[in-house]
Amino acid sequence: MKMSGLFGATLHTAPGSSESAGHQQLLRAGMVRQLAQGIFSYLPLGWRSIRKIEHILREEMAAVAGQELSMPVAQPDELWRTSGRYHKVGAELARFADRRGRGMVLAMTHEEAVTELARSEIDSYRDLPRMVFQLQTKFRDDPRPRAGLIRVREFVMKDAYSLDRDAAGLARQYANQYRAYFRVFGRCGVPVLAVASDVGMMGGELAHEFMYPTPIGEDTLLLCDSCGYRANRQVATFAKPTPPDEAARPMRRFATPQAASVAQLAAAAGVRPDRIAKAVFVQADLGEAEAPVIAVVRGDMDLNESKLAAALGAAGLRPMTADEIAAIGAVAGYGSPVGVTAARVVVDDLVAATPNLLAGANLDGYHLRDVNVGRDFTPELVCDIVAARAGDGCPDCGAALRTTRGVEVGNIFKLGDRYSAVFGATFTDADGARRPVQMGCYGIGVGRLLGCAAQAHHDDRGLTLPITIAPYQVHLCQLGGAGSEAAAAAQALYERLGAAGVEVLHDDRGQRAGSQFADADLIGLPLRATVGARSLARGEIELHDRRTGESWPVPVGAAAETVTAAVSDRLSRANAVPPVSLPPELADRPVTARTGGAAAGSAAAR
Amino acid sequence: MKMSGLFGATLHTAPGSSESAGHQQLLRAGMVRQLAQGIFSYLPLGWRSIRKIEHILREEMAAVAGQELSMPVAQPDELWRTSGRYHKVGAELARFADRRGRGMVLAMTHEEAVTELARSEIDSYRDLPRMVFQLQTKFRDDPRPRAGLIRVREFVMKDAYSLDRDAAGLARQYANQYRAYFRVFGRCGVPVLAVASDVGMMGGELAHEFMYPTPIGEDTLLLCDSCGYRANRQVATFAKPTPPDEAARPMRRFATPQAASVAQLAAAAGVRPDRIAKAVFVQADLGEAEAPVIAVVRGDMDLNESKLAAALGAAGLRPMTADEIAAIGAVAGYGSPVGVTAARVVVDDLVAATPNLLAGANLDGYHLRDVNVGRDFTPELVCDIVAARAGDGCPDCGAALRTTRGVEVGNIFKLGDRYSAVFGATFTDADGARRPVQMGCYGIGVGRLLGCAAQAHHDDRGLTLPITIAPYQVHLCQLGGAGSEAAAAAQALYERLGAAGVEVLHDDRGQRAGSQFADADLIGLPLRATVGARSLARGEIELHDRRTGESWPVPVGAAAETVTAAVSDRLSRANAVPPVSLPPELADRPVTARTGGAAAGSAAAR
Repeated sequence: MKMSGLFGATLHTAPGSSESAGHQQLLRAGMVRQLAQGIFSYLPLGWRSIRKIEHILREEMAAVAGQELSMPVAQPDELWRTSGRYHKVGAELARFADRRGRGMVLAMTHEEAVTELARSEIDSYRDLPRMVFQLQTKFRDDPRPRAGLIRVREFVMKDAYSLDRDAAGLARQYANQYRAYFRVFGRCGVPVLAVASDVGMMGGELAHEFMYPTPIGEDTLLLCDSCGYRANRQVATFAKPTPPDEAARPMRRFATPQAASVAQLAAAAGVRPDRIAKAVFVQADLGEAEAPVIAVVRGDMDLNESKLAAALGAAGLRPMTADEIAAIGAVAGYGSPVGVTAARVVVDDLVAATPNLLAGANLDGYHLRDVNVGRDFTPELVCDIVAARAGDGCPDCGAALRTTRGVEVGNIFKLGDRYSAVFGATFTDADGARRPVQMGCYGIGVGRLLGCAAQAHHDDRGLTLPITIAPYQVHLCQLGGAGSEAAAAAQALYERLGAAGVEVLHDDRGQRAGSQFADADLIGLPLRATVGARSLARGEIELHDRRTGESWPVPVGAAAETVTAAVSDRLSRANAVPPVSLPPELADRPVTARTGGAAAGSAAAR
Repeated sequence: MKMSGLFGATLHTAPGSSESAGHQQLLRAGMVRQLAQGIFSYLPLGWRSIRKIEHILREEMAAVAGQELSMPVAQPDELWRTSGRYHKVGAELARFADRRGRGMVLAMTHEEAVTELARSEIDSYRDLPRMVFQLQTKFRDDPRPRAGLIRVREFVMKDAYSLDRDAAGLARQYANQYRAYFRVFGRCGVPVLAVASDVGMMGGELAHEFMYPTPIGEDTLLLCDSCGYRANRQVATFAKPTPPDEAARPMRRFATPQAASVAQLAAAAGVRPDRIAKAVFVQADLGEAEAPVIAVVRGDMDLNESKLAAALGAAGLRPMTADEIAAIGAVAGYGSPVGVTAARVVVDDLVAATPNLLAGANLDGYHLRDVNVGRDFTPELVCDIVAARAGDGCPDCGAALRTTRGVEVGNIFKLGDRYSAVFGATFTDADGARRPVQMGCYGIGVGRLLGCAAQAHHDDRGLTLPITIAPYQVHLCQLGGAGSEAAAAAQALYERLGAAGVEVLHDDRGQRAGSQFADADLIGLPLRATVGARSLARGEIELHDRRTGESWPVPVGAAAETVTAAVSDRLSRANAVPPVSLPPELADRPVTARTGGAAAGSAAAR
């Protein structure tokens, strides 16, 4: 490609509004442009990187027997009503009416559509297993688009779906994708951690997220350096302390004026926060209706909303308003489930096991001493609903957990029969029985992956993307205008490299060396070859490594071979990803069905 | 690919609901499935054909210096308000509100977005010319989805955009695309006619459509076998007869009870229909408002709504209701513009030149004799607004025109500065002046192209797609189950062909020969290779040509080489498309600016 004909300009001043350094360099290099909040156009250079990522995805999906297909993005909303996600998914799902007034959605993921296909195409156990995937534009109306390509509203996604006869088959395909993901991210130069995660709106039995650790990430991960435990904070568990062994004492009310916070209350009552039962009042979104919920956690711990939502099967939670708290007969700042019947009550397992707690009296300025769960109020659910923190004990080995932030670049879900049962996607098994197809789904955001690669590979002067996904492999600078000796030599090298299959971006615009090098640094192709009169006089051209900054001369006669060999060698090394070992929870054994909300996370983290 | 692992089933009974024979075979072959009206999933076989068409498109776009990029499909509606198309395009444009309530559209074409990019990336005449294109999912809410892939609501489109300094540059790129389109359709095995067409909602100066002639098409084309004139009926002109040379006579009213139709009136008044001025009452959609219009054509001719809409700059027309006709002071069945001031009046040029016409008196049961345009009423516009018909004289040579039906598989538009002027996409020219970028746009519906290829290439037994776009190149039938001699020989051939780069679909399911051949015929790969015990005993396998039905033996030892050579030879021949000559209107000369609505069609047809 000749830069004189390239569509897309480099920007020599950093655009102001972008939030992450990697994204600024994508903008400056002329890779992407924003059209609206969270909505981007890819210029030809950026689109080449996307196409290279897509090529890697296609290769790795083919390696696990993935067959590419394509399902529509505009879908009748009946499909989503059938699965229950029409109500379970909130405003992220774009909805519109077609010209006949029928409800449509822009599918943000394709479980419904693929299950419909499974229903029509799979009839016998002989038609299984199958793995299908697509690379497709999706729209997800993110409430907080940010960090350039990392949180967007429209994006291309690789979504794969496995169809199996039984849980063992699903486990094999899930493990295949788990390994394939490490190869994809490895080849794209994005280091990732796989962590146990929430199944969220997908539903199903088990999920892992692939996290690129970076301070700009919005997810918090809990990691154990001792045994390798890794989980998203949404589901991370920890070794909870042993509750005190005390006999229950009679409950009694006492005045606690101006003690509406845990700290005030602990001081006023002379107790440690770990003996206080903290009530959190939320409204749970249960699809078409909301339900008032009182969640109770220990005073020194924080509610984990993901765990609570999972336990309730809720699509989301929001804080109750003061009026809503009053309406259920509780008192903000002095509230507890004691005496309240108009709300669902979910209690953290540690609170339930702790005797003689301090709790609100649901009377302004009063608390209760020696409250005992089960005696003084009856919870609907008792399970783990608190957030793990750095320093908490690892649930597996007890060592102190640490935290890091990360961006989710991929996820995999064991869906089981979550969709196939609802849609009637069944097959005749060898014994003649009709059974639902066991399904899994596997997503990678293509643009987000480029965003993470740019965040992982840039410096002050521009991008330093890996050779596997850089738009071209070699930046050819020609120091001399049309008709010069340098122009002729550069053109000859360009043609020889092209014939050898090397992808070259040739700066033939006749600009000053400094300006050419600045553009080369911005676009950041791994190798730069410079052809100029001075080095040609010595019979040489100059090669330059974008990442190391190293430069070295190469004889003109050997330039094409040297560059071709260097590109080939770098490509081989970048594509050589060491095999990954499966975590214990993916060992080859039968999958146990999901038993409850938060339990899925704990099981996943084993 | 092994058929034992293929996702997607062949159907041995024809599905009932599909409308075209080609589409029925696509369904039966397991290429596509309908998810909703006009919305399809592509199964892996069908998607391979789509990807092959995309590959051909990429090659041919690259050959005319096209650079691939990607622009978003979800766009803020402000963009479409700026271009004016938010109102000009009707219900085909899907609209929705995002989670913040901001208006969004699903872009059905990307003139707005590419003009925004041109504004940010093009600064100087040195940045021109450019040609960019994308392959992208679009949603167009077609009122009448039909014929399977031919009229759908969601589809992948190749849309290219040219950016030029001046009209001569635009003319060159337009001609490049014109030629590239013949290569694309030729390589895909779809014969096309290029016809002059309406610019429609795109706007601009000149347009051509590429039509696949087929009785299932919805467009009517006017063709001159004598001189090569070709146009869509929407814009086709013809040699109009010379009007009689008479002096104007005084207008007079006369009673015509029960003569509300042209035929009744002609009989009652004793005049030929060609002396009757027929009034057609329509409401024109002018964006945010509608306007009442009386169109007047000769009694023996039909109004061409496309020409009328173009003349008015209207997005669409609908018949007036009886109340609306009464409201402007006219009388249905006895109407004319005489005495009517509350409507816009457009008169066909032949009517305007014809003296002493019979027209409605706007009084129930009465007409007027000897009406003369200009004297008895004053038209706002006089231009060609009638439909050409088979037998009419060719506008170029006078020979009789014939008609045929066709499906539009591609279109190209000279937009000029229609968008760049509005969006301020200007560049600094060599003389220092800022000028708007001259633009063109060029679309091909990828799925529709496959639908047309299937319509052009099928028989009663299934598809017969060209080797360039068939999902695989060779269908390998193995007559014998696992462990048989045939299985071993088939596997060996499969591997040798794979190593040679031949794409093979291997039926390894151990079914009876008849069942295997039926599936092979349905999918219709160009070559079938059959490996069975009987022929192996003779040291042979059997080759079979899907289109001709011919079969011939090949020695086992030479099978891989023979098949590879046959595939390679067929591919070369299928990709060899003879060069096309440009029509006179695309000859290398300056483009004249558009002067008026219907005139664009006439100019285009030169």
